[in-house]
Amino acid sequence: VGALPLSDGPEPGAQFLAEIREQPRALAGLLAHEPEIARIAATARTRGPAFVRLVGHGSSDNAAAYGVYAFGLLPRWTALRDSITLTVHYGTDLDMSGSTVVALSQSGQTPDVVEYVRAARRGGAFTIGITNETESALAREAEALIPLGARREQAIAATKTYTNQLAALALLAAYAAGEGPLMAERIRATIDLLDELIPALEQRMPELGATFAYVSRMFVIGRGAGFATAREIALKLLETCRVAAEPLTATSFAHGPIAALDAQFPVWAIASNDEMLPALIEAAARVRGTGATLIASGSAADLIPGAEHVLATPEPPSPLLAPLLAVIPGQLFAWALARAKGLDPDQPRGLTKVTLAK
Amino acid sequence: VGALPLSDGPEPGAQFLAEIREQPRALAGLLAHEPEIARIAATARTRGPAFVRLVGHGSSDNAAAYGVYAFGLLPRWTALRDSITLTVHYGTDLDMSGSTVVALSQSGQTPDVVEYVRAARRGGAFTIGITNETESALAREAEALIPLGARREQAIAATKTYTNQLAALALLAAYAAGEGPLMAERIRATIDLLDELIPALEQRMPELGATFAYVSRMFVIGRGAGFATAREIALKLLETCRVAAEPLTATSFAHGPIAALDAQFPVWAIASNDEMLPALIEAAARVRGTGATLIASGSAADLIPGAEHVLATPEPPSPLLAPLLAVIPGQLFAWALARAKGLDPDQPRGLTKVTLAK
Repeated sequence: VGALPLSDGPEPGAQFLAEIREQPRALAGLLAHEPEIARIAATARTRGPAFVRLVGHGSSDNAAAYGVYAFGLLPRWTALRDSITLTVHYGTDLDMSGSTVVALSQSGQTPDVVEYVRAARRGGAFTIGITNETESALAREAEALIPLGARREQAIAATKTYTNQLAALALLAAYAAGEGPLMAERIRATIDLLDELIPALEQRMPELGATFAYVSRMFVIGRGAGFATAREIALKLLETCRVAAEPLTATSFAHGPIAALDAQFPVWAIASNDEMLPALIEAAARVRGTGATLIASGSAADLIPGAEHVLATPEPPSPLLAPLLAVIPGQLFAWALARAKGLDPDQPRGLTKVTLAK
Repeated sequence: VGALPLSDGPEPGAQFLAEIREQPRALAGLLAHEPEIARIAATARTRGPAFVRLVGHGSSDNAAAYGVYAFGLLPRWTALRDSITLTVHYGTDLDMSGSTVVALSQSGQTPDVVEYVRAARRGGAFTIGITNETESALAREAEALIPLGARREQAIAATKTYTNQLAALALLAAYAAGEGPLMAERIRATIDLLDELIPALEQRMPELGATFAYVSRMFVIGRGAGFATAREIALKLLETCRVAAEPLTATSFAHGPIAALDAQFPVWAIASNDEMLPALIEAAARVRGTGATLIASGSAADLIPGAEHVLATPEPPSPLLAPLLAVIPGQLFAWALARAKGLDPDQPRGLTKVTLAK
C-alpha cells in the first residue's frame, strides 16, 4: 500500500474522477460528428464490407473487442481484432483489399497502430482512424478520420475516450447497417441515463472501496459485448489500484481459471439482460461454490443470485449500448479502491499518457 | 495452501507429469495423420481460402491464438479467433461462404464449439474439427476431421493435446502454403529436441518451484506467436497452482498493467529469436525498473537482461515451431510449483476433464 502524498496539490484522483463525471458531455461531443460518421460508413459499405479489421492497444483494444459485436450484430459484418504483429513486425503482406480497417488510439500516436494503418492502406484496405487528437499521426495516415470529440483527456487511465470509442463504433456500425439516426437517438437517451447513474453510484463507492482495500487479485467476468466491459474494468483496476485483475469470459472461466479461486479472490460479474445472462448465472453459481466474494454489476445485476455487492445499471435503450453504462461502476470502483489503498489514480506508477512502447 | 493427500494412491501430479513427458511420442502420433491433413488443406485452398475462423475454449483457444500466426505466416491467410457468442448465442447469421472453420476441442464435446460448427456449416463454411476423440460430437459435425493422435489424455490440465494442436495447425497451414512435407520434417526434428529438453528441465524444476512457493500472482508476457505460449503457461498456473497468472502481450503490458507490479509480483517473459525480441527486451527493462522478479524462457531467454531465472529452450527448426518447445518450461514449472504449494496438479479444484459450461 503506497503512501498518501503530503503536498497541498489537488486531491489524488481528482482528474480521473472529473473525467468519469464528464462522460455524458463527452458523448455529446462525439454526436456532433454524426455527419462524418455517416459518410465514412457509406464509404465502408462500398469499399470494404467483406470484413473489418480493428486494431488498438489497452483501452482501445477493449473498445475493439466491443467493435466485433457492433459490426457483427448490426450490419452482420465479420470483424476481428487483427494482429498488429503479423503486419508490422513480421512484415506479412496480407491482401487487405475489401477490408475496412478501424484503428483506435486516444492519442493518435501509438507507433505500431500508425504503422499498421500505413501498411493496410498500401495493402488495399479502407482505413479509418478513431482518435481524440485530430492533429495526430493516426489522423494523418488514415484515409478517414472520426474525431472522438471528448476534449483533451488528462488522466492517464482512459475513461471518457473509452466510452466515446464505444459510441463511435456503435454509430459507425449502425450507419453501415442503415440504422444510424436511430442509434444516435439511443445514444442521446443513454447520455440522460448516465447523467443520473454517475452521481448515484459515486456516492456508494467510498464504502465499497474500503471493503476491498486489501484485495490483491480479482477476476472480472463478462461475455459477448459484456466481455469488452470486463476487459476495461480489469484494466482500470490494474492501472490505478495495482490489483491483479484478469478479465475472463464466463466460459473460459470454467475452462481452468475457476480452480484458482478461494475466499480471498473476489469475482466481479457483469450481467446484462441478453442472451448471455444464463452463462453469467451459471458462472456465478460456480463462484459461490468456491467461497469467493461476488460483485455483480450491469443491467441484470439483480438477477445474479448470491452476489454480496450489487451495482445495478439502468436498462439501455438498445442491448448494444449496455457497455456504455456497464463500465461506469468499474471506473468509479477503481477510483474509490485506489483511494482506499492510499494510491493516487491520477499517477499510476510506470505509465505515461501516450504509450510509445512497441 | 492446500493439504497433501495422505492416501497411498499415486504421487500427486503423477498423471500430469507423465503426459508432459509423453509429448514427443504424442507428436509422432499426430504425424501419422499427415496424409489426411494434406488432403484437408487442399480442400481448404479450394473452398475457403478467404479466411480462417478458429474457435475453442481454454487451451484450445490458446492453440487458436497460435493458428492466427500459422495461417498468417505460411499461406498468408487472414485467420481470426472467431466469436462463438455471436453465432451461437446471439444467433447472428453471418455469411460464412469462402471461410474455413477450424474448431478445436480436445474432448470433441465442448457444447458451443459443436454448435458453432453446425451453424458455420449451414452458413457455407468448410468446417474442420481438430480433436483427440474421433468418436465425438465434433468429429461427427465437422466435414473434415484431424485426429490429434495423442492417445487418451487423463490429466485435467491439457499438455500433450495442446502441443499436438499446435503441430496440427502448423502442418495444416504449411500444406495450405505448399510446404507441408518440409514442416513435417521440422516437426520430427522438434520431437528430437523435446526428447532432450523435457528431462533436462524437469530436473531443475523442484528447486524453482520451491523458490516461488508463496507467489499468488504473476504476469506472463509474450508477443506474436509467443503470446499463445504466454496464454497457455498462465492457464496452467491458474489451473494447477491457484496463481492469478495473467497473460499479456509485451505491448499491452506497457499500456496499463505494468502499474500493478511490485517486488511480490514476478513476471515471466517468453523470448524467441524473432522480430518480436526487441519488444520483449524493452518490456523486461520496464519490469526490472519496478523491482519485480523476472523469469525468462524460450530460445532467446539468455538475451533478456536481468532475468533472475533463465529457462532456455533450443532453437527450433523453424521460428513457427518455437511454441512447441517454449511451452515446456511452463508446464513443468506448473507441476513443480503445485507440488511446492502442496497442491495436486492432477486434481484442480472445480474442474472436470470435459468442460460442458456454456
